[in-house]
Amino acid sequence: MTIGDKGTKKEADMQTLKSSLRKLTSSSSAHFSSAAAASSPRHLLSIADLSPAEFSFLVDKAAQYRQLIRSESFATTAERQPLTGHTVAMLFSKRSTRTRVSSEAAINYLGGHPMFLGKEDIQLGVNETLYDTGRVISSMTSCLVARVGPHSDIAGLAAASSVPVINALCDTYHPLQAIADVLTIKEAFKEIKGLRMAWVGDANNVLNDLALACAKSGINVSVATPKEYTVNAKVFSLIKAAAVESGAEVLICHEPREAIKDADIVVTDTWVSMGQETEKKLRMEQFAGFQVTNELCSVAKEQWKFMHCLPRKPEEVADEVFYSERSLVFDEAENRLYAMLAALEGFVVRKGVLSE
Amino acid sequence: MTIGDKGTKKEADMQTLKSSLRKLTSSSSAHFSSAAAASSPRHLLSIADLSPAEFSFLVDKAAQYRQLIRSESFATTAERQPLTGHTVAMLFSKRSTRTRVSSEAAINYLGGHPMFLGKEDIQLGVNETLYDTGRVISSMTSCLVARVGPHSDIAGLAAASSVPVINALCDTYHPLQAIADVLTIKEAFKEIKGLRMAWVGDANNVLNDLALACAKSGINVSVATPKEYTVNAKVFSLIKAAAVESGAEVLICHEPREAIKDADIVVTDTWVSMGQETEKKLRMEQFAGFQVTNELCSVAKEQWKFMHCLPRKPEEVADEVFYSERSLVFDEAENRLYAMLAALEGFVVRKGVLSE
Amino acid sequence: MTIGDKGTKKEADMQTLKSSLRKLTSSSSAHFSSAAAASSPRHLLSIADLSPAEFSFLVDKAAQYRQLIRSESFATTAERQPLTGHTVAMLFSKRSTRTRVSSEAAINYLGGHPMFLGKEDIQLGVNETLYDTGRVISSMTSCLVARVGPHSDIAGLAAASSVPVINALCDTYHPLQAIADVLTIKEAFKEIKGLRMAWVGDANNVLNDLALACAKSGINVSVATPKEYTVNAKVFSLIKAAAVESGAEVLICHEPREAIKDADIVVTDTWVSMGQETEKKLRMEQFAGFQVTNELCSVAKEQWKFMHCLPRKPEEVADEVFYSERSLVFDEAENRLYAMLAALEGFVVRKGVLSE
Repeated sequence: MTIGDKGTKKEADMQTLKSSLRKLTSSSSAHFSSAAAASSPRHLLSIADLSPAEFSFLVDKAAQYRQLIRSESFATTAERQPLTGHTVAMLFSKRSTRTRVSSEAAINYLGGHPMFLGKEDIQLGVNETLYDTGRVISSMTSCLVARVGPHSDIAGLAAASSVPVINALCDTYHPLQAIADVLTIKEAFKEIKGLRMAWVGDANNVLNDLALACAKSGINVSVATPKEYTVNAKVFSLIKAAAVESGAEVLICHEPREAIKDADIVVTDTWVSMGQETEKKLRMEQFAGFQVTNELCSVAKEQWKFMHCLPRKPEEVADEVFYSERSLVFDEAENRLYAMLAALEGFVVRKGVLSE
Repeated sequence: MTIGDKGTKKEADMQTLKSSLRKLTSSSSAHFSSAAAASSPRHLLSIADLSPAEFSFLVDKAAQYRQLIRSESFATTAERQPLTGHTVAMLFSKRSTRTRVSSEAAINYLGGHPMFLGKEDIQLGVNETLYDTGRVISSMTSCLVARVGPHSDIAGLAAASSVPVINALCDTYHPLQAIADVLTIKEAFKEIKGLRMAWVGDANNVLNDLALACAKSGINVSVATPKEYTVNAKVFSLIKAAAVESGAEVLICHEPREAIKDADIVVTDTWVSMGQETEKKLRMEQFAGFQVTNELCSVAKEQWKFMHCLPRKPEEVADEVFYSERSLVFDEAENRLYAMLAALEGFVVRKGVLSE
Repeated sequence: MTIGDKGTKKEADMQTLKSSLRKLTSSSSAHFSSAAAASSPRHLLSIADLSPAEFSFLVDKAAQYRQLIRSESFATTAERQPLTGHTVAMLFSKRSTRTRVSSEAAINYLGGHPMFLGKEDIQLGVNETLYDTGRVISSMTSCLVARVGPHSDIAGLAAASSVPVINALCDTYHPLQAIADVLTIKEAFKEIKGLRMAWVGDANNVLNDLALACAKSGINVSVATPKEYTVNAKVFSLIKAAAVESGAEVLICHEPREAIKDADIVVTDTWVSMGQETEKKLRMEQFAGFQVTNELCSVAKEQWKFMHCLPRKPEEVADEVFYSERSLVFDEAENRLYAMLAALEGFVVRKGVLSE
């Protein structure tokens, strides 16, 4: 049997944690088919690539890994490691602690070898074409996890690669963070349909995939950005379309309090991302009034929670919120691990077949 | 059974190499308890943290690994790899060849994945607080091995971490080197109580933990530093207290020949540590007369041995000593591997229960 | 049984893929003998170190790994991983994507841990002698894979090392590329004796070992370099001697068309290697007329093929050739993985006994 073979459907009625594990186990004695690898593999470049059911499948997988690893503290066995013998290339044009740690730990947990290639090791498109690099590295590995600048870099790698490419952050999308975030919301609220997520901050890559993820999950989306920043038009139309399908509401504005009104979850992110350091002074002025504080959030639902993908600077959120009981930030960071495990299972082990 | 469970005491009368291995074996099918992980883990920050019996336990474990790996040349089996599925974060603010190689090889031998994060990958305290970093990384891994500058950095990580932190060298302590060094002395002399270790050189981090280790082991300690350098006062009082308990003598002076008198082991280290390059000229003058030569050591015991934690520059020890039969330096370097294995077994697998 | 023990000869009549695997399997439960490690290990520094039969053995092993991994897509089992528990040090003074990726993937496939040490991690000969570094690192690992500058660096490491050293590229030799290249030729042409390989370009390290490999394999060698560059005299005499033994012809000239005449394979490489960027303008002039195009190759055999070790710049070969059906370049790159597997099996697992 090939890993990810649709023949696994016969086990569809055993969707418990243990059955999921047995599937992983049986997979490990099977193999990745080279025929399938030669045909175009399925990649994870954005939440936009997933149907609502597929996104939900990945969140549920992540939840299963969370339960498993938390109860067994990373204990595993050779039979549960379908990536034994496999190498996963990690192409990181930029530094990214959480992405790196969660990726290496997830790949290793499944038995694979995480091969980290930083900007000192490889410069995409500099010494040879992106196509040549993607084709060569994919011929010796089982998956490419890439953290790049322009989205065109990851799209170019995906076009050349004979193995699945997982976007570990680009200038436009951050799908693994979105999986981790919806998992975090689900763990905190159980029933997520009808909740309201308020984003207060920059119109960035994290927001793009998180808003898509919420819209696909039936979570209402409110976004407040400084008037100088607006959500990417193409992404906005995708968010709207997903919201129409799920029945969720979408509100975009430039007033934090308007977005936070009746929110269950308040989310922000750094105001000055890597590479924007020269604009810091300007940005600090533009984001005046956007710091998340208890006072600002007095219009949210009584049981509101706070999220932030980290690393965090004090300007965007006060200590009284960040280190409070309302804060889900450390759970959210840990959930990156389970999101990566779900992505590896979904795209590498199951070859993109995202259903039982 | 939980790894490190005190229930292992029933095997206490089987303290041979083979029984130790069987214990590792049975451990591997067990798991790390998340309850224990949530409570405060035990860290290895300095030899000062260990009772004499605990220090001796770690040295004995290291000796067992030495015998095992030397006789089987790294051969192992899945059952002997209790860290399978686990990732160990290696946070290295500074370069350190021996520490890195011994740590990666030891983690790998036990089945774990060593995730190396150098100063290009992560800068402690720069992009987020040390607390946030420690809490996040420890939530996705099973151990932090850190090689930092100020001792406050490793203490800060330990305060935030939900998993054991092992100090792989800070400005004040170097416990893994001390375990390796006492193992080296034990392999060379068998009975160590009553020996005399003479340190001739800088009053640095290596000396601090080595003197503590010797004092706890009943080895007499003689130290000669240039008059411009003196042993850290707090550490000195710890050394004195340990010596009182074990009956060892402690002599601190500024005259190499005085310290070397009747010594069984003569030890030195670089005069110019990483980061002190600008003071090189000054230091070379201050250390005049401190180079270890056969002539200088003519007052030592007839069978004196030489040790140095490496890397070595010729100024601190002459080739006639460094590459002679008296030199234990390459054994000492290799013993770093076994010291790390003992630390991983003691603090990660056994969760700080340092007795059979 | 010790890995690499000559006692394996009893299986010599089962030289099929499956029997080769069973051998790997049985090896994994055995061990590396420390006695053998203490004696001088066999290294792979150049194709010059190998008899024709030994070189052929490595190419055949590489072909077996190619068939195995292509049919099973990296699937493996613990029994097939003789390097489990072993760490292989990768000492890379210079960046090298293909060498790094193929080495890490190969080491991992066999169960070992690839420990990458770049120029940020270790600077050979700077902080301590090459001898001290080689002796220390080899005492904690099972193999050194080194990508260095001067050949004296790798020779120095080999002299100090207690474990096998594999040359992953130095200024003079590139044996792993030569194994991959002859494997590529064999896969494309089946019968290789009597073919003609034409090298059109720089007189560099890749050429040296490739010409040696062809000469040892009975492949005729034609080389055209700009008149400013000539094949290393010592290497040339080795190539000639090998050709005499195999009956191959060797032609050295400065006219591309003369070398390409009747060639089955046309090979080139970058004109400006790493570290030669300052000479770029001069070199571009010297190599005028050396770009591989369909027109230039009109004098080759009708079914001629193109090879290049990558990374490729457009100046040395036109797109019409590089991305054509004649181009074997991506197969050649992938074959680096199988070449490294063969080298690891030959020198680490079998300890340099390169025959069944």
